[in-house]
Amino acid sequence: MSETTAAQTGQQAPARRGAAYDSAFLRACRREPVPHTPVWFMRQAGRSLPEYLKIREGIPMLESCMRPELVKEITLQPVRRHKVDAAIFFSDIVVPLKAVGIDVDIKPGIGPVIADPIRTREDLQRLRPLEPDDVPYITEAIGLLVAELGSTPLIGFAGAPYTLASYLVEGGPSKNHERTKAMMYGEPELWAELVDRLADITAGFLKVQIEAGVSAVQLFDSWVGSLAPDDYRRSVMPASTKVFDAVASYGVPRIHFGVGTGELLGLMGQAGADVVGVDWRVPLHEAARRVGPGKALQGNLDPAVLFAPTSVIETKAREVLHSACAIGESGHIFNLGHGVTPGMDPDALSRLVAFVHENSQR
Amino acid sequence: MSETTAAQTGQQAPARRGAAYDSAFLRACRREPVPHTPVWFMRQAGRSLPEYLKIREGIPMLESCMRPELVKEITLQPVRRHKVDAAIFFSDIVVPLKAVGIDVDIKPGIGPVIADPIRTREDLQRLRPLEPDDVPYITEAIGLLVAELGSTPLIGFAGAPYTLASYLVEGGPSKNHERTKAMMYGEPELWAELVDRLADITAGFLKVQIEAGVSAVQLFDSWVGSLAPDDYRRSVMPASTKVFDAVASYGVPRIHFGVGTGELLGLMGQAGADVVGVDWRVPLHEAARRVGPGKALQGNLDPAVLFAPTSVIETKAREVLHSACAIGESGHIFNLGHGVTPGMDPDALSRLVAFVHENSQR
Repeated sequence: MSETTAAQTGQQAPARRGAAYDSAFLRACRREPVPHTPVWFMRQAGRSLPEYLKIREGIPMLESCMRPELVKEITLQPVRRHKVDAAIFFSDIVVPLKAVGIDVDIKPGIGPVIADPIRTREDLQRLRPLEPDDVPYITEAIGLLVAELGSTPLIGFAGAPYTLASYLVEGGPSKNHERTKAMMYGEPELWAELVDRLADITAGFLKVQIEAGVSAVQLFDSWVGSLAPDDYRRSVMPASTKVFDAVASYGVPRIHFGVGTGELLGLMGQAGADVVGVDWRVPLHEAARRVGPGKALQGNLDPAVLFAPTSVIETKAREVLHSACAIGESGHIFNLGHGVTPGMDPDALSRLVAFVHENSQR
Repeated sequence: MSETTAAQTGQQAPARRGAAYDSAFLRACRREPVPHTPVWFMRQAGRSLPEYLKIREGIPMLESCMRPELVKEITLQPVRRHKVDAAIFFSDIVVPLKAVGIDVDIKPGIGPVIADPIRTREDLQRLRPLEPDDVPYITEAIGLLVAELGSTPLIGFAGAPYTLASYLVEGGPSKNHERTKAMMYGEPELWAELVDRLADITAGFLKVQIEAGVSAVQLFDSWVGSLAPDDYRRSVMPASTKVFDAVASYGVPRIHFGVGTGELLGLMGQAGADVVGVDWRVPLHEAARRVGPGKALQGNLDPAVLFAPTSVIETKAREVLHSACAIGESGHIFNLGHGVTPGMDPDALSRLVAFVHENSQR
């Protein structure tokens, strides 16, 4: 099958063989036997690590994403400290929006704020496709990282069209996404064009990362759990599918994750994910049933468990490993059901990595 | 069956016959044939109504809950305006906490703030059972309302033990409920005693409302959707069951609602609800499957739909009515999948009530 055909059909091409090809993480993504269950944590880079807080001091978030040496260091910090099975590239989902010219800033304690929200057909003109030249710092940072990481895989990522649309339409973080949904429900053609343009930007951003050397990509649809399945199928899935199709020919595993997506797991897999991320609300054996065969699962320890004593963390981690048996012989990547939160004890995370490794020896 | 036995077994006693007994709302709660699908809106009293904002001017939230004439007027406003099939008593879930002596205030733009959070065994002593004399203003307000409402049913309500515990342990609203879950996971005995005491307070608060004349009660577990099913079953369900059992002998319908509770619907019904509230993420026909036979369902239009044009609101409302056919001949109460939000157009809500009535004629 040619690369073009693979991309067109959404079928994944044969996996690319890099230094990390035989890592437990990538083997699990491909549902091949693994020596132990691989583990990494969403938002492992940043937030809870004192060395991160120190190195970021005085540097605004978006600026820090544009400094390759800094990105390299922040990305490596949790790999060194926790011995996780994969690194996740330090960046932010609004970086590609900024790169195509959207006036966006990440305000501490608030989140991304868009100076001029996107709400009309005219506004859409501001969303042009992303080219590699828009993000040279991304290519550079990934180059530095891949050289340093060796056989440890690096995961690239991007925000999915629905989540990006929510920020752009609301003008910032939102509890109920009311303006976003008003457009989705009330102006379906405008909405379709908006998420289609965002799919192009997102696909472009992922392609840059893959070309630069990441071993896998994760598409974060943080807010999509606020939709009913019919609305997801009608108004969001086509754009997410376009993103996954666009990178299918590279043969790197594609992970898809959202929070509160119990009702959407099957559809999110069908959109083109090789690995479906599951939050802690749905037990993995039930998630396996909803997603169906042929996909790996990632998750799903309740992050709040990390605030309990070690014995509790281990009991709950064991429950996750046990529930994952339903996925089959392999195909489970251990993770939290959502990102690391600021107050989390880094040592508890390190102990959890060791525990998962020890208790999943094959 | 004697009342005592009914309460002990959690079985509901024969329905009490008041002036509202044959209303569409109460008939639907009992899954009896109805002339049309009844409709009311969570948070219909307050927020989006200009007459509410006017009458509340300068009066702090908790104080307003303690003024019977004001409570009566605020509760009646949406009934007059929207012609909904039921009134929901204007109050707040922290009122019973305040009534037993907890130092709590509702801060505008924040929510309930607890001066001294509950985190130790010693702190538990501050949670004593609620007696009718603690809330004379509740009894008085309900008396005024029932006299005025005639055949329109009045719904009483309370916060469920998990949600109240979250406010008490965190000290206020919380995104991830980390301290709450840390106690639940790490100090299960302390936790069990905490929610057991809260069950007594909640049951006491509901009893006062029922004795004063409400026709149904809704137990709100706003935050419980942040739990996995096993944790709910182990750590929360016993306390919620205790609440429902305590009021079973009165024979008034018991509604149970939470947000993001797709995985918990069956268990929340089993806890003792006669009516299970469903948010918009789970289609009603699927909710009916999860809840099982013998219970009515309430919901579940996405509140954000109210920000779309009328034609869209009507299409989506029709989808809800259609999905509700799966529940059977009767047993559906139309509602939003979550509360009315401040920016919602009151006229859109009024039109929606008329639309549901017209399009569900039997």
